[in-house]
Amino acid sequence: MSAFARIATASGPRFARAEGDGWLVLRDAPWSSLEETGERVEAPTLLAPVTPSKIICVGRNYVAHARELGHEVPKEPLLFFKPPSAVIGPSDAILLPPESERVDHEAELGVVIGARCRDVPREQAPSVIFGYTCVNDVTARDLQKRDGQWARAKGFDTFCPVGPRIVTKLDPQRLRVRCRVDGVTRQDGETRDMLFPVAELVAYISRVFTLEPGDLIATGTPEGVGKLDAGGTVVVEIDEIGALSNPVRAR
Amino acid sequence: MSAFARIATASGPRFARAEGDGWLVLRDAPWSSLEETGERVEAPTLLAPVTPSKIICVGRNYVAHARELGHEVPKEPLLFFKPPSAVIGPSDAILLPPESERVDHEAELGVVIGARCRDVPREQAPSVIFGYTCVNDVTARDLQKRDGQWARAKGFDTFCPVGPRIVTKLDPQRLRVRCRVDGVTRQDGETRDMLFPVAELVAYISRVFTLEPGDLIATGTPEGVGKLDAGGTVVVEIDEIGALSNPVRAR
Repeated sequence: MSAFARIATASGPRFARAEGDGWLVLRDAPWSSLEETGERVEAPTLLAPVTPSKIICVGRNYVAHARELGHEVPKEPLLFFKPPSAVIGPSDAILLPPESERVDHEAELGVVIGARCRDVPREQAPSVIFGYTCVNDVTARDLQKRDGQWARAKGFDTFCPVGPRIVTKLDPQRLRVRCRVDGVTRQDGETRDMLFPVAELVAYISRVFTLEPGDLIATGTPEGVGKLDAGGTVVVEIDEIGALSNPVRAR
Repeated sequence: MSAFARIATASGPRFARAEGDGWLVLRDAPWSSLEETGERVEAPTLLAPVTPSKIICVGRNYVAHARELGHEVPKEPLLFFKPPSAVIGPSDAILLPPESERVDHEAELGVVIGARCRDVPREQAPSVIFGYTCVNDVTARDLQKRDGQWARAKGFDTFCPVGPRIVTKLDPQRLRVRCRVDGVTRQDGETRDMLFPVAELVAYISRVFTLEPGDLIATGTPEGVGKLDAGGTVVVEIDEIGALSNPVRAR
């Protein structure tokens, strides 16, 4: 197990590998090369650890969450996109748009793709996965219902916090995904309860889209989604990966 | 009015500006710089003229098309995404996936963004538009209905032909958008019939997402959508821009 982040340095954003309490700067994205520059940084600002060409999200992938929103359990993975322009990093603010009266948190396990691939058999999915991170699939619930298509409701700028780091070689079906708002636990799920486990998602998604290194899959949220208010702080925390904390502000 | 394309050269894909019957190779994307390399190419292979960070599409933007699919006319633009992995260029094959029994053409005017922007007032939209191109919003109609969300039905690899070139300084509401399959006209619409004209789309979309240079907006399709069959050829043609022709094959 190794941990990677994207950090702010004097020469711009760089990928880095965790070592002890510090970070070793890498020449390139870690899925391309692990070559180091020789620079070590002790306590950098952490940026979103991915700059994906696409973000594929999965709806209603936990039975209890599908039911809490009054939906049937899907027979196949339900896919939608968030745009790269929505990505923010740890500590960046989620901005509540004036168009919505109800913006929700959705804590999710994120899967970072490590290799260009398509038509990946389920049993080979681990070979195309670089690692795992935390994602908050922020959603304007009122607009989601009104629009029908979810592109706007889930696509506003700042609606895709990702981080704080990518951790490799985890068992993606043995993780606890929690969400706290102002210290109060709102979601507390187990990835073993996913309707379609990660390997099946990678197989299904890669039959539709060619996946690129650095692409991100958000694997769906457990029950307990709820409203975010300006002035609060939302934390998505996953075992082994860490805590993704973002303040919430009105735009 | 100028025309730009992305072309195959000995040193890889390059943007180029049309001059006479040939193309002058550019150092960078034309929305970044018009500096030329000095190289001129006479009859290159044309590639997709954009490599967008996102593709924002508009559903039901022509009244007659909304009605032909049995839908209400929307009160606001209905947005969805196609992924960058779906983009193909002129002459590339549209591949029909085995999952679908009904893949349709949708001829559309494409708007290429020229500057990073957000919250663009309607009257300033022309200042952030680089130019216009042809888009075929290829759609697996059966999967679109079954899935509810359109990401899969409209996102398969090869489902976003774009080209053949980008033309600047057109009036986007005075163009004829046609689609022919094997020489037979299937769609023949006028962009003046858009429910939400291009300037209003740019204003609406940029209130949700930050737009990046090279991003693509597909502005909706006029009536007459219909099925594509393997072995055929589909052409999207727009006045002043040209004809985007793609063969259709089974995957």
